[in-house]
Amino acid sequence: MPPKTLVIVGGVAGGASAAARARRLSEDANIIVFERGPHVSFANCGLPYFVGGEIQSRESLLLHTPATLKERFNLDVRIKTEIVAIDREARRVKARELDSGREYYQQYDALILSTGAVPVRPPIPGIDRPGHFVVRNVPDADSIVAWLDNPNTKRAVVVGGGYIGLEMAEQLKRRGLEVAIVEALDQVLATFDVEMARMIELELESKGIKLFLNSPVVGFEEPMAADSARASTVVLKDGRKLPADIVILALGVRPEIGLARDAGLEIGARGGIRVDECMRTSDPHIWAVGDAVEVRDLVTGEWTLIPLAGPASRQGRIAADNVFGHQTLYAGSLGTSIVGVFGIVAAGTGANEKCLRRAGIRFEAIHLHPPSHATYYPGASTVTLKILFAPESGRLLGAQAVGRDGVDKRIDVLATAIKAKMTVDDLAGLELAYAPPFGSAKDPVNLAGMAAQNIVRGHARNIHWDQLGNIDLSNTVLLDVRTTLEREAGGIPGSIHIPLEELRNRLSELPRDKEIIAYCRSGQRSYYACRILTQRGYKARNLSGSYLTWYYACNAL
Amino acid sequence: MPPKTLVIVGGVAGGASAAARARRLSEDANIIVFERGPHVSFANCGLPYFVGGEIQSRESLLLHTPATLKERFNLDVRIKTEIVAIDREARRVKARELDSGREYYQQYDALILSTGAVPVRPPIPGIDRPGHFVVRNVPDADSIVAWLDNPNTKRAVVVGGGYIGLEMAEQLKRRGLEVAIVEALDQVLATFDVEMARMIELELESKGIKLFLNSPVVGFEEPMAADSARASTVVLKDGRKLPADIVILALGVRPEIGLARDAGLEIGARGGIRVDECMRTSDPHIWAVGDAVEVRDLVTGEWTLIPLAGPASRQGRIAADNVFGHQTLYAGSLGTSIVGVFGIVAAGTGANEKCLRRAGIRFEAIHLHPPSHATYYPGASTVTLKILFAPESGRLLGAQAVGRDGVDKRIDVLATAIKAKMTVDDLAGLELAYAPPFGSAKDPVNLAGMAAQNIVRGHARNIHWDQLGNIDLSNTVLLDVRTTLEREAGGIPGSIHIPLEELRNRLSELPRDKEIIAYCRSGQRSYYACRILTQRGYKARNLSGSYLTWYYACNAL
Repeated sequence: MPPKTLVIVGGVAGGASAAARARRLSEDANIIVFERGPHVSFANCGLPYFVGGEIQSRESLLLHTPATLKERFNLDVRIKTEIVAIDREARRVKARELDSGREYYQQYDALILSTGAVPVRPPIPGIDRPGHFVVRNVPDADSIVAWLDNPNTKRAVVVGGGYIGLEMAEQLKRRGLEVAIVEALDQVLATFDVEMARMIELELESKGIKLFLNSPVVGFEEPMAADSARASTVVLKDGRKLPADIVILALGVRPEIGLARDAGLEIGARGGIRVDECMRTSDPHIWAVGDAVEVRDLVTGEWTLIPLAGPASRQGRIAADNVFGHQTLYAGSLGTSIVGVFGIVAAGTGANEKCLRRAGIRFEAIHLHPPSHATYYPGASTVTLKILFAPESGRLLGAQAVGRDGVDKRIDVLATAIKAKMTVDDLAGLELAYAPPFGSAKDPVNLAGMAAQNIVRGHARNIHWDQLGNIDLSNTVLLDVRTTLEREAGGIPGSIHIPLEELRNRLSELPRDKEIIAYCRSGQRSYYACRILTQRGYKARNLSGSYLTWYYACNAL
Repeated sequence: MPPKTLVIVGGVAGGASAAARARRLSEDANIIVFERGPHVSFANCGLPYFVGGEIQSRESLLLHTPATLKERFNLDVRIKTEIVAIDREARRVKARELDSGREYYQQYDALILSTGAVPVRPPIPGIDRPGHFVVRNVPDADSIVAWLDNPNTKRAVVVGGGYIGLEMAEQLKRRGLEVAIVEALDQVLATFDVEMARMIELELESKGIKLFLNSPVVGFEEPMAADSARASTVVLKDGRKLPADIVILALGVRPEIGLARDAGLEIGARGGIRVDECMRTSDPHIWAVGDAVEVRDLVTGEWTLIPLAGPASRQGRIAADNVFGHQTLYAGSLGTSIVGVFGIVAAGTGANEKCLRRAGIRFEAIHLHPPSHATYYPGASTVTLKILFAPESGRLLGAQAVGRDGVDKRIDVLATAIKAKMTVDDLAGLELAYAPPFGSAKDPVNLAGMAAQNIVRGHARNIHWDQLGNIDLSNTVLLDVRTTLEREAGGIPGSIHIPLEELRNRLSELPRDKEIIAYCRSGQRSYYACRILTQRGYKARNLSGSYLTWYYACNAL
């Protein structure tokens, strides 16, 4: 029997999506949405751009109000009302109106929890000082804008080099602030492999953002008088001190599970609410969606947290389907994500090297640097692409891309391919849209598939930038096959130089008893070189991504 | 045993790709490429842009020369040399050097035919007059540029509204010419369904291109003296006459199969060389690739011709693999294609309505008009998207998109989905990259999947723009659920108006014994209306794509 009363806790992303879908499935249900904050269905992903002024209208962030949701979907939306407890036995929630303090019970037949996530605030001394902000909702953004409007707010320290941290850094720079990013790890964007993240770091630095990696914050101190900082002096582990007129805390989020835990619902090891494929919790009358839940990683099969708007929105819809008896399954997540800063874009999908190692999944990787579209048509730029795949089956496991144009397209195609359990053979054969302004006859995705296919079939053997440090030059030759002009602009130390075009005639210069590691700019010509060498009896490996990947990975900072 | 001598006929796209791959697989093989024209491996897709001046360097069109192919791949490339016969018995081809007239035989162990296609030139009186050009190779482009350099070349008539015709029309306009496109069919871009093509037609007209649809050319006459036209007077079937200083013949291409046919190789019903999945012809020593061959349509299973660079390039690689004993299969083609004119882009993949009807495949269609990215971030534009899917299984059969931004991305994702045999459920669940500048939490592809899912599950019933003409308003109500403001700007004749937000309170105004066809701007709010109506006992159908699709389909020209 369909529920008479559906209660939804949380009116943003997953909750709003669930409520709207529920109404489409049932005109008769009583659908009540409780939201602790002052807004429902607001554009949280737009907050950095509102702070920076790229989004000028605050109204445009407020996609719906309780009134518009009432009009369009006949929803009973109660903002500034917190659910403080779930009485599972009696199937009711205890609500508290935050303005009046009034408390009351609301009965439900079905309950959907979309309680979201809260910013991580580690117990660093001084973390709660004035001038420190998180970026989670419209009031946060309002507070930041108000603080920035003071002309003495000139130096920003962003703590955390994740998506929000980078977007905020860009937007604060856009407003003319001096900006530093402080990151405990040795790279920004932890979901990317380090050599890919380096490209973004390089871009940030070239735009005047100061980057402090390997730099956990140990304290936020009262500013020294000489600094006249409005917020804090940010103290790094190595003792360096950064005066800050504003501090943005972008240290990630953790699931908001207090309500679920107090009600005795099952919680997973990663700290999110445990749900099945129907988004149902351990209580058959309660569903949960969005940042608050754990989902299956589609590649590794492990439980994971993916606090992103897209999955939340789809999970909300799926939960509503199941509440009303239309079985719809959520298969799991890939964690497809994207961030753009200063015109450079980084996007990824599926597993990265770290995830695969942790899950004990064997993989091969390739790097390539093809143009975003046919080079003979103006405006092409380089798309740096990395794919991870199973060494024997060739199944695609993950992909990352960085570039100025066409990055979102390639990652969306690769996300679709991973979802479809495609192999690198499938990638090689994909038939993508080609005209000179849009791609190439062999799209970067095709090229990735072909290069990986060569590995799987044994036509090529790779070596990676992070293995170069371990090679012994007494039994290895590092061979640069680029042109003389390219070579003159810089090469990998210890390498010898034979341009590809001369290789066939100069094979005798190479030793047969040593392994030859060939490199060029991007790895394509050096692959050709390896094919020549291997067929002529040499032991040869291709440096994946070649000079460009090596350069970004080893020299960027 | 691998072949000692591989002969390739045709040095562009498929042929060049096959040759380069062959060398990577075998350093020992003697690889000879015969090319009738003066150039190998040139950028034929770039020719219109070179004519228009967007590509300024003629050199950039010449991706390789015989010398660079010799240097890099040790290929023996013989340009201006035509293969005039294949002696299958003796495994040799007869070559003719076009400059000297010298003829000789070249033995082969394996032969790859990449003979391409030739422009269709129907026997229209006067078709060979001076000032008439096809756009197939660099000399063609050179001739056009020379003709355009005469300042009296002011009026262009492009015969044929396909990809090349449209690209040429844009580029000629860019050079300041008056441009007319003459098309025998009732639409441009025959691979698109008519309501999608209308959007492009509208754009062409708005940019000052004169469009003559349903207008076969019956003759090219000596210009009348009063016209002082440099080329011809183009005579349309209805008697209209267009003076032309230049005529571009863009009537499509047909496979160049003379050599194959004369050698007794099997030719398919569509006029292309018949090959198996290894790209092998009916002769076990001869392979064929590119525009000259028929391929399987991956959706309908029918043999078809797909004269595009992407498939040609991949087929060349696959043929070389198979020649050297590495089995690689070409599964078939989707005909994924894209064209951009004046900033608007049309792309498609898989089957269109015409193909499905011809193949007797049942389908449903939906249209939608979502924004290219989150609307609260500046710069979003509308992506008009149509998908075709199987009514019961929900399997995706085809997709078309038109818009200013993000069209290539969505079609590439959908091409990948068709290749993976995905259903509309799969589309609904795809996890695509979302940040406000790049997409939406529910990407247009997700929305298409969700809307189609509603059809498959019976949550919604659609009606299409081309069925509206047949409805009987005595037993049907056409219901506009848009806002009053939208309504005032224009509506579908005969419709009544109840804004969605008022519908629940005004149900009594609607008759229960008639079918209600609801529409809004794009079909989303009218779907909501249909859900209300259906649950309240009304018979309701949603106008797919709603006002926008109806407007483009019925009012554009």
